[in-house]
Amino acid sequence: MSSVLGKNLKVSVFGQSHSAAIGCCIDGLPAGEVIDRAELLEFMKRRAPGRHSYSTARTEDDLPEFLAGVLENEAGGLVTCGTPVMIVIRNKDCRPSDYMTFNDVPRPGHADYAAHMRYKGYQDVRGGGHFSGRLTAPLCAAGGICRQLLVRRGILVRAHIYSIGDIFDEPFHPVRIGTGGQETAVNGDFPVIDADKGSLMIKAIETCRQAGDSIGGIVECAVTGLPAGLGDPMFEGLENLIAGAVFGIPAVKGIEFGAGFAASRMKGSEHNDPFRMKDGKVATVTNNHGGILGGLSSGMPLLFRVAFKPTPSICQPQESVSYTGRCNTELSVTGRHDPCIVPRAVPVVEAVAAIVLLDLLN
Amino acid sequence: MSSVLGKNLKVSVFGQSHSAAIGCCIDGLPAGEVIDRAELLEFMKRRAPGRHSYSTARTEDDLPEFLAGVLENEAGGLVTCGTPVMIVIRNKDCRPSDYMTFNDVPRPGHADYAAHMRYKGYQDVRGGGHFSGRLTAPLCAAGGICRQLLVRRGILVRAHIYSIGDIFDEPFHPVRIGTGGQETAVNGDFPVIDADKGSLMIKAIETCRQAGDSIGGIVECAVTGLPAGLGDPMFEGLENLIAGAVFGIPAVKGIEFGAGFAASRMKGSEHNDPFRMKDGKVATVTNNHGGILGGLSSGMPLLFRVAFKPTPSICQPQESVSYTGRCNTELSVTGRHDPCIVPRAVPVVEAVAAIVLLDLLN
Amino acid sequence: MSSVLGKNLKVSVFGQSHSAAIGCCIDGLPAGEVIDRAELLEFMKRRAPGRHSYSTARTEDDLPEFLAGVLENEAGGLVTCGTPVMIVIRNKDCRPSDYMTFNDVPRPGHADYAAHMRYKGYQDVRGGGHFSGRLTAPLCAAGGICRQLLVRRGILVRAHIYSIGDIFDEPFHPVRIGTGGQETAVNGDFPVIDADKGSLMIKAIETCRQAGDSIGGIVECAVTGLPAGLGDPMFEGLENLIAGAVFGIPAVKGIEFGAGFAASRMKGSEHNDPFRMKDGKVATVTNNHGGILGGLSSGMPLLFRVAFKPTPSICQPQESVSYTGRCNTELSVTGRHDPCIVPRAVPVVEAVAAIVLLDLLN
Amino acid sequence: MSSVLGKNLKVSVFGQSHSAAIGCCIDGLPAGEVIDRAELLEFMKRRAPGRHSYSTARTEDDLPEFLAGVLENEAGGLVTCGTPVMIVIRNKDCRPSDYMTFNDVPRPGHADYAAHMRYKGYQDVRGGGHFSGRLTAPLCAAGGICRQLLVRRGILVRAHIYSIGDIFDEPFHPVRIGTGGQETAVNGDFPVIDADKGSLMIKAIETCRQAGDSIGGIVECAVTGLPAGLGDPMFEGLENLIAGAVFGIPAVKGIEFGAGFAASRMKGSEHNDPFRMKDGKVATVTNNHGGILGGLSSGMPLLFRVAFKPTPSICQPQESVSYTGRCNTELSVTGRHDPCIVPRAVPVVEAVAAIVLLDLLN
Repeated sequence: MSSVLGKNLKVSVFGQSHSAAIGCCIDGLPAGEVIDRAELLEFMKRRAPGRHSYSTARTEDDLPEFLAGVLENEAGGLVTCGTPVMIVIRNKDCRPSDYMTFNDVPRPGHADYAAHMRYKGYQDVRGGGHFSGRLTAPLCAAGGICRQLLVRRGILVRAHIYSIGDIFDEPFHPVRIGTGGQETAVNGDFPVIDADKGSLMIKAIETCRQAGDSIGGIVECAVTGLPAGLGDPMFEGLENLIAGAVFGIPAVKGIEFGAGFAASRMKGSEHNDPFRMKDGKVATVTNNHGGILGGLSSGMPLLFRVAFKPTPSICQPQESVSYTGRCNTELSVTGRHDPCIVPRAVPVVEAVAAIVLLDLLN
Repeated sequence: MSSVLGKNLKVSVFGQSHSAAIGCCIDGLPAGEVIDRAELLEFMKRRAPGRHSYSTARTEDDLPEFLAGVLENEAGGLVTCGTPVMIVIRNKDCRPSDYMTFNDVPRPGHADYAAHMRYKGYQDVRGGGHFSGRLTAPLCAAGGICRQLLVRRGILVRAHIYSIGDIFDEPFHPVRIGTGGQETAVNGDFPVIDADKGSLMIKAIETCRQAGDSIGGIVECAVTGLPAGLGDPMFEGLENLIAGAVFGIPAVKGIEFGAGFAASRMKGSEHNDPFRMKDGKVATVTNNHGGILGGLSSGMPLLFRVAFKPTPSICQPQESVSYTGRCNTELSVTGRHDPCIVPRAVPVVEAVAAIVLLDLLN
Repeated sequence: MSSVLGKNLKVSVFGQSHSAAIGCCIDGLPAGEVIDRAELLEFMKRRAPGRHSYSTARTEDDLPEFLAGVLENEAGGLVTCGTPVMIVIRNKDCRPSDYMTFNDVPRPGHADYAAHMRYKGYQDVRGGGHFSGRLTAPLCAAGGICRQLLVRRGILVRAHIYSIGDIFDEPFHPVRIGTGGQETAVNGDFPVIDADKGSLMIKAIETCRQAGDSIGGIVECAVTGLPAGLGDPMFEGLENLIAGAVFGIPAVKGIEFGAGFAASRMKGSEHNDPFRMKDGKVATVTNNHGGILGGLSSGMPLLFRVAFKPTPSICQPQESVSYTGRCNTELSVTGRHDPCIVPRAVPVVEAVAAIVLLDLLN
Repeated sequence: MSSVLGKNLKVSVFGQSHSAAIGCCIDGLPAGEVIDRAELLEFMKRRAPGRHSYSTARTEDDLPEFLAGVLENEAGGLVTCGTPVMIVIRNKDCRPSDYMTFNDVPRPGHADYAAHMRYKGYQDVRGGGHFSGRLTAPLCAAGGICRQLLVRRGILVRAHIYSIGDIFDEPFHPVRIGTGGQETAVNGDFPVIDADKGSLMIKAIETCRQAGDSIGGIVECAVTGLPAGLGDPMFEGLENLIAGAVFGIPAVKGIEFGAGFAASRMKGSEHNDPFRMKDGKVATVTNNHGGILGGLSSGMPLLFRVAFKPTPSICQPQESVSYTGRCNTELSVTGRHDPCIVPRAVPVVEAVAAIVLLDLLN
């Protein structure tokens, strides 16, 4: 039951890095919604591997096949018919032989050892199995569809690379985001607002790659156009639901909303966002609350940041243990991997947020 | 459905700051478990109001009354009988008149406006209603019971004040926590490891109180004794479940596990925790992963930090709006409140973590 | 987690027959709904014990106390404020001493033995504990409120005694129910359409009571005013949800919708209900489908029948076993009980249906 | 969210009668379980179409393809790896043109009209879409796997044709079932205990087929080997869970446990099952309670019966309406269909029961 996200809109994700296929089943999409296939492919391409020096060399075209839940309209477009939408993505460029060692020697920073204990040795170790970042492809398929439906309701989910290591992009403006500028800047292949910072980031990633190392970073996400009063108190607030879902993305180690951890160093007189009438509606002058008060949307832009650890797969030799030998040993991870997962994680964060929000609005 | 936490162990929380009572219904506790009432009261007292200059002047003895789900054993102790345990805490020191203004003028930083939109003006505004920090009393009752059951299973949940503003306590040692020292240091009224830092923190809070202001902080929590392999991948990992629950505590704006946000600035070669055989078991040398790999427990101490914003209730005049006047106005918040919520939040974080973990182990 | 009903509207039920109190927590009621207290008491009285020779001699006034979730309006009425509504009913006329034997000797037909195995001997045996029919009082409190909200949406839930033993009342007319006549007839204390059949039923129950025996029966329930297209396919159809909830009422052993079991003896040409335009809307000429097609409402009256076994508590000596003696023994059940539960079960069936339907419409 | 069954073991079903594929995702199967593919195919063949004169002429080989969640062991067998098991069954023998009319004219007894209202005309009408009996193929795949795991735990789920129209098979013996005889008799193609009654049933179905009509029937299911004390009270009892799942099978209109509806006509002194020590264990002499007391298993055979309505697809002309014409019209259903669904429904009932029980035992 672990790989099902949502309540009234349920996304079940399946697959392993080297199984025949990966995919998802989306239960609860409203009927009669057109899925723009080209736009979906465009969205999924943002996380696809093999396109850059800073991403894994594995190549997968990641074409989502719709097995059920849609009908073709006269224009050849896909239209939801109300019942579960089933999407399958075939795994093609598999090299399971790369991973045979990990049956006995867990890779540091990976789920290998914990999974070994959880599944009593029966887990699929090839490429991380179900714990692989590859499983974010079906998440993007599901989230990309949800994102299209949200846009039709006036809601835009948009993320960018907030930082790579200690290089920081210009942050989203907490109040003005959504009124133009920044959100269009982050449309490119390497989504940053400040292109110069982007260049520095790419350079930093390249340096890591050459050293056989990896590096972490932060993704910032903004949602504009949400009505005020969305969500529920306590355990079904926006923060609970988004956080509960975002940690489903591999390598996430932290999340903060609005001023987030910085709020812990602020005074109430600094942090409280004054209310003000604006164009006949209630708004706040600042947005330290990140668009969420008491778990409910305030009508201001929803803002959160997600911390990613460095990719655990590195080429340098590492210390580990052998289960069978019950002894210490050394491990060299071959296989193909990203020196930095963050650029490809940007659309994944958008996807997860879109699923959560459409579920709430449904 | 918003105020129900858990899957196989379900905690339903009810009440408003000034309703006749608050409380919780705990469904799914195993039968035959003794509840140590004295220990539970001791635990709940750690979050009780009115004990210090740094907490609200409201006094509530917060005695949990057990309406169902337990039987007395011969020693007068409470024993669970397997069916829902119902706990009621009467509200006594209510002064609803303090809050009448907020019907029309929302308090900055509070849930007032978002709740007004969510509930179309029908919400209980008195003292924040269901959004009040007072609702953490039943959470502590439920979590305090779960914590007792965990201790019997060898699992200890323990938190401390990590920071108030920019004063930081000594952090938990990520590997050695649980082997003595730190966890006993944090037993006191103001749970810090370094007493000198504690004095500085109390002073800082007092300064805020006198200025009619408030301040934020961070709580750090460690769980020791967990078996490896607990949890599920994707959306039911330990991080998902703990994060999804912790944001149910009012004023939480961020959470991070292990190295957390700092991991975003690290290289893989620094962040990866090498495995090593230790006393015949697999352990890691360092613990940047915070005891969680792939959403599953690794057997190392589970570590997370929770960021609290400053209490939104401050005595200084603030800018707000009037719903009826549809105009800007000024607001002075009277009522009783904490200049810093963090010290009282420490047991609440423990309580929520204990509920989540017992649910998983159940 | 067993005693929580619903998805977006969640009702948590707690209590034992002889605990300090029983009650329920209703999470998810819309804000701003007036609860007509007098009407609610009237509804709850329909299941209250001690009113007739055919019901238990235990007397409980069953006054629901609202601890949270409502505010008083100016007219002294209760208005929901959107957050959980908590209702407590104190147990007053307890005689736990009546039940001491059952710790060792399970009563035939009761949950005693199964509960003994489930809860390892720690269950509350007094009066059946959490398995007691007494727990239907909070169900009626919750369902009575939901029923009021449904009426405001044009939906009427109405049940009657369909049979006691082999005496059958006139059934609801599957098409015309809701247009007057039958549904008003079933308003009385002993809800039957045909008063003569009612007299025979009362006589039959009285005969059982005098013989120290009990008798079963069937409740029929009709819901009118439902829009077409409500529900979901497969596992969240109306039949799934209603059946899944109705078996939560003690003593229920069967449920059927529309023609039900009789449909198994019909031909398709008899059973299929022809469609016909009626007042510009699609309707069916007959209603063998009981208002449900493919799990979804058809717009025709929803009809189902619920079979109740005879009350297991009878005054005649019965064969049982002793756990401690590990031997056969004989048992005489004293205590107070209904010779027939069916008349008091009528509002309980309505209550459960109302909860399920309001959850779906919410 | 409608097509997901279970709590800790979750089965998501997808597909339409004429979509590219149908299938299911099984989340929560324990790791390291061997799936006997031959046995699974054998089980699925019991519901496969096109094998007899009494079933639809549509032919589908219904080969389940495993896309994820299993690994091959050295013997070429399939072993679960703990993460979701994904099964796809391609639809081959599609003739969507058979169904074009139903876009405008709903078939009596089918979900067409209700689905039209639910999905605003966007539903897939071809062959009933997601409401088709064809969706029971993936249910059998999932349930067939669960049934294998149950057998390894000593639990046998077994069903037979209890009746077709008014021809009744010998019923399962409520106490002795599981000790040999009856359960092996029902292994054949047309699962009845009394072969003579089976011949009469086949004849009756054939008569219906020739008349262009259809007929209903009842399936009886027994589960032996369950431990006592399984299940939970109120809304997660065995009856709730089984009933809530069984109505997910198309054409089910009723369910009863143990004596069921007959219990409504019994006295307590007849219906109560006396306890008796048997081989050192507590058992009941009779089994009117059908193995369930208070929602929990009693350790006696679990027994229930499921009523199926006659297949709504019949060849005779029927009265219906035209949505576009807003007028009455006549309809002739062509296409291929079963004159009686009951024989093929037997394994489906077993499958659904097996899923529910494995979820509880998990």
